[in-house]
Order: sequence, then structure tokens, then C-alpha cells
Amino acid sequence: MDKLSRLSEREIIERFFIDPDAVPVENQVGIGDDCAVLNTPGNRHVQTLVTTDLLVEQVHFQTSYFSAEEIGHKAIAINLSDIAAMGGRPTAAFLSVALPSRLSTEWVEDFSRGFLDLCRKFDVPLLGGDTSSGKKDIIVSVTVLGKADHNHVKLRSDAQPGDRIFVTGTLGDSAAGFELLNDGMAGLLEDEEQSFLVGRQKRPAPTVKEGAWLGRQASVHAMIDLSDGLAADAGHLSRSSALGFDINLDQIPLSDPFKKYTGQDEDKAIKLALGGGEDYHLLFTVSGSDAENIADSYQNRFGTPLYEIGKVTDQHKGVAYYRNNNSIDLPVSGFDHFKR
Amino acid sequence: MDKLSRLSEREIIERFFIDPDAVPVENQVGIGDDCAVLNTPGNRHVQTLVTTDLLVEQVHFQTSYFSAEEIGHKAIAINLSDIAAMGGRPTAAFLSVALPSRLSTEWVEDFSRGFLDLCRKFDVPLLGGDTSSGKKDIIVSVTVLGKADHNHVKLRSDAQPGDRIFVTGTLGDSAAGFELLNDGMAGLLEDEEQSFLVGRQKRPAPTVKEGAWLGRQASVHAMIDLSDGLAADAGHLSRSSALGFDINLDQIPLSDPFKKYTGQDEDKAIKLALGGGEDYHLLFTVSGSDAENIADSYQNRFGTPLYEIGKVTDQHKGVAYYRNNNSIDLPVSGFDHFKR
Repeated sequence: MDKLSRLSEREIIERFFIDPDAVPVENQVGIGDDCAVLNTPGNRHVQTLVTTDLLVEQVHFQTSYFSAEEIGHKAIAINLSDIAAMGGRPTAAFLSVALPSRLSTEWVEDFSRGFLDLCRKFDVPLLGGDTSSGKKDIIVSVTVLGKADHNHVKLRSDAQPGDRIFVTGTLGDSAAGFELLNDGMAGLLEDEEQSFLVGRQKRPAPTVKEGAWLGRQASVHAMIDLSDGLAADAGHLSRSSALGFDINLDQIPLSDPFKKYTGQDEDKAIKLALGGGEDYHLLFTVSGSDAENIADSYQNRFGTPLYEIGKVTDQHKGVAYYRNNNSIDLPVSGFDHFKR
Repeated sequence: MDKLSRLSEREIIERFFIDPDAVPVENQVGIGDDCAVLNTPGNRHVQTLVTTDLLVEQVHFQTSYFSAEEIGHKAIAINLSDIAAMGGRPTAAFLSVALPSRLSTEWVEDFSRGFLDLCRKFDVPLLGGDTSSGKKDIIVSVTVLGKADHNHVKLRSDAQPGDRIFVTGTLGDSAAGFELLNDGMAGLLEDEEQSFLVGRQKRPAPTVKEGAWLGRQASVHAMIDLSDGLAADAGHLSRSSALGFDINLDQIPLSDPFKKYTGQDEDKAIKLALGGGEDYHLLFTVSGSDAENIADSYQNRFGTPLYEIGKVTDQHKGVAYYRNNNSIDLPVSGFDHFKR
């Protein structure tokens, strides 16, 4: 009898949930990207995107430091982020919850507010779900549908040699916030610096409009959202595209509170920024010749910069790291709920 | 502070998860039917159906008498049944699971087989999901997408005065099977009779082809699947259609093992057949003049009969029960996971 805990999430999916006998579905993307991509009956131009995430108390969040409102917010945010990662727009949300009887109606009201406020912000209607009592742990399962012009869907496998690699925001803040929540607040940080890092863990801001805009840019090739951490997510793009991803550590964008938190501890900074996960920024590749144009247009439209962090190469496979143009060996792995 | 356990599932949904400020979505059916119904961008003829169900160990199943294979089967079966209840065809499945580390890889393999075998039977590809470790309880969340011609979608609200009411199979078997699993086997039943009842609880057979066929019949009006029990589900149709549902208890189809199990205990038979739930047959209404034609065509096509159990009236609202043409008072309520 094999122990389940010895397998990674990817191993479990590949071993048990990829059906070798399934009827192949033409032009559909199934398991293995941020969303499934389905053709629209009778409409060759629009594709339907589907993503789903399951959050379990004690595994993905603790009520000791996540408020009901924050759990509601995060549950929909991470699904909206998956739609953004495909270059699509979210169109409908579905919410299933198991609610243990120890919860008050106030708790459910706050949870619902956190969920619906973010839905409303992006005009995503909540159209269904399933509500049942729970035994011990709170369970939240969210499915979000989206749509995208079939020319605008960004797959993990679409990187091209010579592409330049970008991220939409600073990395590691959420992982630092997670440490602060677990280990207690760090004395050397100001209150607002701690709040920033913890807020990035508790209330991630999905890049809904940014993802849809990047989807419309033909020179943007592969895209993914940073949920597992840069190392793992660059690995996903690299593996799907069968190309090498060269990342310059000097270029990784880090926030001031993050730099203050990690201080001189470079190993800690790398571990959090590359391996921590839950940043929910976008990681994507752009054809070399159009990169400046995309970065300028993005800055003009959204008022925030894009950060270039490396380039795609056909000289090797996998993710390679550089500092001051020297290759360095970096044994960081991603965030895996089975192996944590 | 209000206790959550004092509210029914419907009260919780209406109080917390219906967004009064939501942007109205034209021609979409949201919370309150078996599936959400979404318009297809650029195609007025086909609508997309979405349904989702959450199963939690200790709440919806026990591993002491549900095998991994049976849990997998049931998780997809009940979602396929929701698509059938709208008159649609299932097109894609999504599966999220939280798997506690005590499970063996054999358990996951058996679970996956139960799930994928039923997907394969109806050509429904598994296109995505989420896999994570679990703490204590196994959690299974399934979303199924379907499609239907917009003329073929059967809503709960579409019953007409004078319609005749039908069900596609015998009622109460699953609830009797549930009792046998909980209270031990009844000595007076043969092994195969017990297996039949328990099998209806553990391995419900979704009416996938039947639902799609009924969807194509213009004279079939309102439809729902029998998940909460006839009393509650007829109540859903009655409330949504704002019409009365007159049910003749003499006409309720009961299987021989069920009749043997309940014996002379008429209260028990009524409680199980009307209030037990999880039958996963279809309950629907047909225009009075076309009822014989529909019943004959159905019998010819599927080799099993339709059972007529009553009629729709505009003389009152709610569900009324009759025996030998006499109105009787029947205080049966449906299956509610919050109030059980």
C-alpha cells in the first residue's frame, strides 16, 4: 500500500486523474493549464474558460488569523486570477460551502460580503453553488467561468525562443506575510509594513483587467499566475513550452517591506520570493522585439510597471538562475500542498 | 449571535448568497434551479448549463460503508443528474478533491475509477480541477457543464395548469438503502433485495439520456431531479411555477424490495418515498393532451415506463396529497443537510 503523502499534486493528477481512455476532445485544453479551455458550440471565435479551487480550513487557511471576510475575498480572488492568467474575462462564479454548525450567521454574512464585494468589483455574477452543513472544517469550493477570443487565449505552452520574461508585481510579499502570521510579527517592521505583507497574503488583488489586456496583445505568448511561486510557475511554463527559462535574480522585483523583513538573509529572501507562492501576479513572456512597447503601454494604462526578469531560450530546458550574469545553482522548489 | 443550525439551506442561500446589488444578467438563470443557465456569446440557440455539488465525509457519506469507487461514482452521478434535470447534455466535468494523508494510493485509484467510468459511459471528459491534501475528512467537489438548445431548457418555473405529473422510476429505494446501511440489514429481506436498495443509495444511475430526450419534447414543461425527495422537489416546482401540485399517493411507484422492507408500516413508506431523497429520478410535468404520447414514446425508447403521479392546478398553491381521491394531510418535509 503506497502512502499518498509521498506523491506530489502533479504526480497524483497524472497517475489517477488523467484518463488514458477518454475520448479526445478537439481543440480543447484540459488538465494542465490555469483553466480548461472549451470551444463554444456554433461560435468559433469565443472560447469558454473554466477554473476551480478548493480551500479547506487547517490546510489552506486558519480562522485564528483569517477573518470570514478575508476567506471570502481570497476564495474568489484566486479563481479570478486563473482566468486572468489565460488572458480572459470572468463571466460567472459558483460557490459551494460546507459550514460547520459552530459558525454564527454573522460569520457567514462576513464571508459572503468578502466574496460578493470582489465579484461586484469585476461585474461577475454569483450564479449558483451548493450549501451544506460541515462537520469540523470550513470548506469553500469556487468555480469561475470566463471567456476569451480564441486568438487571445494564453497557454503555458506558447513561449517562444527569444521571448523576454515579465512579472506584474513584487514577489515574496505574500509568503513573508504568511510567515508573520505564523511566527508572530517581526519587531523591526513598522505596523504599516507588516500590514502590507500580511495583506498580500490575506487579500490578494487579482489582476483581472491586466490579464484581459495582456490577452489582447498578440506579442504576449505564454502566461501563468504566480500561485506556486516563481520557481515552480516558471517551471510550469518551461516544461509546457519545452524551452529554457533564464531568470536574473538581480531583476526580481522586491517590495521595501519585504527587503526590510528579509534583511541580510539572502537565502530567506530567495526562498520566499522564488518558492513562497501565492503572489497572484502574472508571469508571462513577450516577443523580444515588442517588449518595450508592451511595457510602456501597460504602464500608461495601469499606472504600474511591468518587471522584466529574464529570457526564454532554446539552448536548454528547465529554469536556470543568474546573478551578475553568472549562472548559479538554486535548489528552490515550489509550494505543494501535499509535500509541505 | 444567531445559530447557523437553525436555518435551512434555502434560508442560508437567500439570506447570504443572493446579491441584491448584483448587475442583472440578461436571460440567465442563476441561483434557484438545478443548474445555472448561461447564454452563449454570439450563439442564441445554445445555452450553457452549470451545476456543482460538494460532498463531505461524515456529512454526505461514510467510508465505513461507501467504497472509494462508490464515492467517485456518486460524486459525478448527482451532477450528471442535475444536467439531465434541465433537459441538457453534459459536456465536461471538473473534480476537486482534498485527500487526507491516511488514504492509500489504492483508495485514490479506486475513487478515480468510479468517477471516470461513469464519465466515460456518457462521453464526458474530465477537464480540470484541484487536488490538495486534506486534514481529516475527504472532500469531493464536482462541477459539470452541459449544453442545451435554448428551446429545450426545462426550468422549475415552467409548469402549466392542467399539466400531468410524472416520475421516471420508483421512489424511496435510496432512502431505504440508507437506513439499511445505518441500522444494519433487515433480516426479512433476501440478499439481492437488500443489494438493490443499498445500490440505489450508493450507485445512483443518472438519467442522462432520458433527461436530454425529455428536454427535446416541447410538451414537457417543468422538470427537476429527485434529490431532496418528492415532497420537497414537488414543492420546488410548485413554488417556482406558483401553481398547485396534486399528488395521488396510490400512484407513487414503489419497488418490490421497498414494499417488502416497509411492510405494513405505511408511515415509514410515506416518509421514505416522499421525504427520503436521493432517488435521482426525474420529476416533470407534461401538457395534458400529450401525456399518453410522451409516455408511449419514452417506453419505446428506453424500455422502462414513466409513472404518472398527479396533476398541476391553478386552484391552490403548494403540494396537496390524495388517496382514493380524498385529500389527506401529510406533514412530510424534504431532506435538508442543515436540519437533519
